[in-house]
Amino acid sequence: MIVLGIDPGYGRCGFGVIESNESAMNGWSHLASGVISTSAETEFSDRLLEIGDDLVSIIRQYKPELLVIEQLFFAKNTTTAMKVAHARGMIVYVAKKEGVRVEDVMPNEVKQALTGYGAADKKQMQEMVKTVFGLSKVPEPDDAADALAIAWTGATRAAYL
Amino acid sequence: MIVLGIDPGYGRCGFGVIESNESAMNGWSHLASGVISTSAETEFSDRLLEIGDDLVSIIRQYKPELLVIEQLFFAKNTTTAMKVAHARGMIVYVAKKEGVRVEDVMPNEVKQALTGYGAADKKQMQEMVKTVFGLSKVPEPDDAADALAIAWTGATRAAYL
Repeated sequence: MIVLGIDPGYGRCGFGVIESNESAMNGWSHLASGVISTSAETEFSDRLLEIGDDLVSIIRQYKPELLVIEQLFFAKNTTTAMKVAHARGMIVYVAKKEGVRVEDVMPNEVKQALTGYGAADKKQMQEMVKTVFGLSKVPEPDDAADALAIAWTGATRAAYL
Repeated sequence: MIVLGIDPGYGRCGFGVIESNESAMNGWSHLASGVISTSAETEFSDRLLEIGDDLVSIIRQYKPELLVIEQLFFAKNTTTAMKVAHARGMIVYVAKKEGVRVEDVMPNEVKQALTGYGAADKKQMQEMVKTVFGLSKVPEPDDAADALAIAWTGATRAAYL
């Protein structure tokens, strides 16, 4: 089973692709990870189009069964929050359109799943991503590591619920 | 020129299609209007898919050159605001993907364009939609009338800026 994790954003949108693998230490291997980035000089509607097109390419290349995407939590109704929500809605639509099942995870659920601690800091999370997938270093950039954590949380949800 | 106006939403998403017409009183005729609605019992990701699919059908049927969509303005960061932003991002993406130019309008800009008064009430707006397009009655439901007002504002923007 292949799972695609998404750390939603419009300037930087992290993605992480993992595959179930019985011989891997924690049952899942890292296949690919990275970030889809768009320029602040590009009109917002064109940024959405770019991210959507790149996401379609990733989905068609890796053929995930499940897309796991983090829920948004913003303390304030900022312009940024609304823009990330625009991108997130587009991403969910693109996944469904490509026939991929979509599941949400909450930020604290991801922390809990990786570190057993819902308030873990960013550094702890990244170290756990490296450990879980048996990587030689923390995947970069941060958004890619976050997306791998999100993918793993959704993929292994049945195991820790 | 054909213009599609969208009053964004996920439970009810209004649409209005208008066409430039020299013989029409105000230069534009009403072609079609209505609402795309989804059930609260449907999972949110499936609601996005339904709205997107219906929007693609409308775009392919009427072939608008321009899609005009209202900007969101919410005083509070409610769950509803974030969900509408999800739908709006998906709508903008679908339009761009179908090769349609996208323009935003602000709610007070729509009121100003139709009534010359940025704080007009809903009733005044709807009466003006009826008048502008020379219709025998106010288009229903409200979301459809709002979408026609949005389309007209974007379509005639050059005229009143």
